[in-house]
Amino acid sequence: MDLNADLAEGFGRWELGDDQALLGVVTSANVACGFHAGDSVVIRAAVTRAAERDVAVGAQVGYRDLAGFGRRFIDVPPRELTDDVIYQIGALSGFARVAGTEVAYVKPHGALYNAIVHHAEQAAAVVEAVRSYDPGLAVLGLPGSEWLSQAEQAGLRTFREAFADRAYTPEGTLVSRREPGAVLHDPEEIAQRCLDLAAGEPIRAVDGSEIQVCADSICVHGDSPGAVAIAQAVHDRLSGAGVALRPFVAGGS
Amino acid sequence: MDLNADLAEGFGRWELGDDQALLGVVTSANVACGFHAGDSVVIRAAVTRAAERDVAVGAQVGYRDLAGFGRRFIDVPPRELTDDVIYQIGALSGFARVAGTEVAYVKPHGALYNAIVHHAEQAAAVVEAVRSYDPGLAVLGLPGSEWLSQAEQAGLRTFREAFADRAYTPEGTLVSRREPGAVLHDPEEIAQRCLDLAAGEPIRAVDGSEIQVCADSICVHGDSPGAVAIAQAVHDRLSGAGVALRPFVAGGS
Amino acid sequence: MDLNADLAEGFGRWELGDDQALLGVVTSANVACGFHAGDSVVIRAAVTRAAERDVAVGAQVGYRDLAGFGRRFIDVPPRELTDDVIYQIGALSGFARVAGTEVAYVKPHGALYNAIVHHAEQAAAVVEAVRSYDPGLAVLGLPGSEWLSQAEQAGLRTFREAFADRAYTPEGTLVSRREPGAVLHDPEEIAQRCLDLAAGEPIRAVDGSEIQVCADSICVHGDSPGAVAIAQAVHDRLSGAGVALRPFVAGGS
Amino acid sequence: MDLNADLAEGFGRWELGDDQALLGVVTSANVACGFHAGDSVVIRAAVTRAAERDVAVGAQVGYRDLAGFGRRFIDVPPRELTDDVIYQIGALSGFARVAGTEVAYVKPHGALYNAIVHHAEQAAAVVEAVRSYDPGLAVLGLPGSEWLSQAEQAGLRTFREAFADRAYTPEGTLVSRREPGAVLHDPEEIAQRCLDLAAGEPIRAVDGSEIQVCADSICVHGDSPGAVAIAQAVHDRLSGAGVALRPFVAGGS
Repeated sequence: MDLNADLAEGFGRWELGDDQALLGVVTSANVACGFHAGDSVVIRAAVTRAAERDVAVGAQVGYRDLAGFGRRFIDVPPRELTDDVIYQIGALSGFARVAGTEVAYVKPHGALYNAIVHHAEQAAAVVEAVRSYDPGLAVLGLPGSEWLSQAEQAGLRTFREAFADRAYTPEGTLVSRREPGAVLHDPEEIAQRCLDLAAGEPIRAVDGSEIQVCADSICVHGDSPGAVAIAQAVHDRLSGAGVALRPFVAGGS
Repeated sequence: MDLNADLAEGFGRWELGDDQALLGVVTSANVACGFHAGDSVVIRAAVTRAAERDVAVGAQVGYRDLAGFGRRFIDVPPRELTDDVIYQIGALSGFARVAGTEVAYVKPHGALYNAIVHHAEQAAAVVEAVRSYDPGLAVLGLPGSEWLSQAEQAGLRTFREAFADRAYTPEGTLVSRREPGAVLHDPEEIAQRCLDLAAGEPIRAVDGSEIQVCADSICVHGDSPGAVAIAQAVHDRLSGAGVALRPFVAGGS
Repeated sequence: MDLNADLAEGFGRWELGDDQALLGVVTSANVACGFHAGDSVVIRAAVTRAAERDVAVGAQVGYRDLAGFGRRFIDVPPRELTDDVIYQIGALSGFARVAGTEVAYVKPHGALYNAIVHHAEQAAAVVEAVRSYDPGLAVLGLPGSEWLSQAEQAGLRTFREAFADRAYTPEGTLVSRREPGAVLHDPEEIAQRCLDLAAGEPIRAVDGSEIQVCADSICVHGDSPGAVAIAQAVHDRLSGAGVALRPFVAGGS
Repeated sequence: MDLNADLAEGFGRWELGDDQALLGVVTSANVACGFHAGDSVVIRAAVTRAAERDVAVGAQVGYRDLAGFGRRFIDVPPRELTDDVIYQIGALSGFARVAGTEVAYVKPHGALYNAIVHHAEQAAAVVEAVRSYDPGLAVLGLPGSEWLSQAEQAGLRTFREAFADRAYTPEGTLVSRREPGAVLHDPEEIAQRCLDLAAGEPIRAVDGSEIQVCADSICVHGDSPGAVAIAQAVHDRLSGAGVALRPFVAGGS
């Protein structure tokens, strides 16, 4: 199983998350590329340290929106979006090259991630960016999304992620953050769920029913001290149970 | 001889210069990388068309300053500057890759160009960025500058440029733009001077004395209709005189 | 009748439109406030010259999106949008104060203008910004829009604009730019239509039928040499026909 | 005596400092205006809460440099700098107006603060901005600086600040941060020094000699939990000793 988290989410004077701590927990790092977060210094530091720890480097591409942290949908024309994504992958690749590694995968961020679950044109634009940059790049996303579906059709290697701390509907989709109980907070419960996911066991949906969620990677968060502790708990539980933690990109779709 | 000019200097809705016309004139394109100018779309278009015409693609790296078009000195700490330059080279390289070409050289822009004529720390920072990104990259700059001197010491291939439309002092440096006569406007005079430069002949300094300026490339401008006409005149004069126009990066230092 | 146009749409090195020429034509200036266009220098110049010519100064507020020129819908949460609009009105008011005048009205720009024709939450957010800043401010917009409707309910003075160079449907709405014939190009036809609008006469819809469009102001454009010529033709035709051209804010709703 | 501190230094998702806590401590708030820090929401919140607590609102104007947090000198041409400062004061004034208060003073931030201690042209540019916006505005700065000297000559009301946690040279200037002992960390020592400053008593310079520092306001910091605790200690010590804490702008120069 793979654990992924967002890194390099600071900007200039502003810090966010504890990249050092997370790099001791995850096996794949979604590195911000400067459009929604991440200045040159923080990106380079994250990539360099990830390379030292054999953590896979992914491009967390986003809308050009520092003020909104990439969390606001922007109706970017598809052609512009393709070029914005190529720009970001290229910029990150420069630091990967300097660190002696490579960008291994692409995982969109925030509102872009959410948009391309359904927005076919923007999904196609991001797929086109990845394909034209390097058809060997892997992509990570939500099972059943336009993003993964179109990426697969374009011949890209696709990987599915589950969320450690999010409640699922009986249909296997995420409970909206606006609903009560959408986010789990109990480290013990979260760690157990991740163990079930890793073992291919069903997990409990928000209504108590059992659902089967297939995942190549589990997304953990690190933007608060509590979040890092939970991520660590997940890591320790999986390791303790003998689950091998390694980057999903080592395998195939 | 090589002719170089700045491209991709628009941003979003704002256009600047006539990239299409310039790509019919120059053999090396200094492509803005998004920090002082150049959005993803205009950068990609410039790189793609340059590749189609066998025009060499250079990274015109600058300070992060869209509002000032990179023309205002910024006292960026050297380590940050190194990372900002790597970011920009990487971003441009992404588009070069997609276009089936490579970034061949680095030429700083505006205030950064001027600063590293003398500013040893910032010059070292840019050299370090280029060297760590790819020691095979060429660099283009002003003869006698810290930039070229340090680049040479770092083992980079260095190339010197002359300016088609700038007056020179008897010492071979540029007359400050604040002085009268600093900029030449007569296409005929400019074209003749470029022919002399290409032939290795001395040119006239601002005081009428003869000076020897050694150049691997001549910089022309394209940010006004008149400038494009002058660039075309230089191109035609050199071609008509049998001077082979080709990218300087094809040769060596 | 009032003629309005967008001003201060450059940014730093990048120029757009001919503010000087437009200020000889229009009676109300929609001045960009720095979020989608307009740096401090170009804003101040536009406001200062508008004040000198007794042209009314309006705040053309937009999404924070220089790269997209404010033409891309952004799903800004309403509370943030309210504060972004207050920020922009305040910034413009600073220059108005220095120039000895005041911001007289608010007209949203680009994608925000289009969004709040229907988007009730964003319309309410902009109305709230205007009302909380100064309930005496006038607002300018599309007849029948959420924006004008909610502004009126909030007690603001509302004014309706027509477009000099846009085709209308038989229902009195604008023909989408994606349809053929959406934009008029014949200066003579445009000028005659504006004269009809000023006289309260019906105009021809795109299907040839007659429709009645009520307007307190006519929007002209100035972002190309042709556009300025058309704006001038409209001005001259109205003036020649004895139509008094003066800012709409001098009157009432 | 007055206590001042920097507020609204976050941006979008990024928080910095504890504005709520500081507003219980200081009598004057230097509110960031969006160029080096401060988005619309955080600015409005700071201004609104300052108004509720009768804390004076000051415009902390800075270079346009979010990536550098305004801490990097930028060689902005004076005319542009004047307009950038007017823009920022205007934007902040909009929120002050909505909150039922007014901007009372101007205190430049970071690299601009440091530059105009000596840089006569930039100092003049900022003074010109303040004077043209409102000659009744007060200005706060370092005793002996070009900034205060030129402001006084321009007829502005000037106020001097001392720093609670910075070591002074025997000449009464600040010990450079690059020198050992430049920053004081002992809350007790800092509080005692502030009491001496408030009483008009001499304080100890870094070499142990006694110096007289005249101050209308003492600057405290709040960008770390420790800093807030020190600011609170200063506030409590002064209050406990019967020193009336109130905004400096209530008095005169």
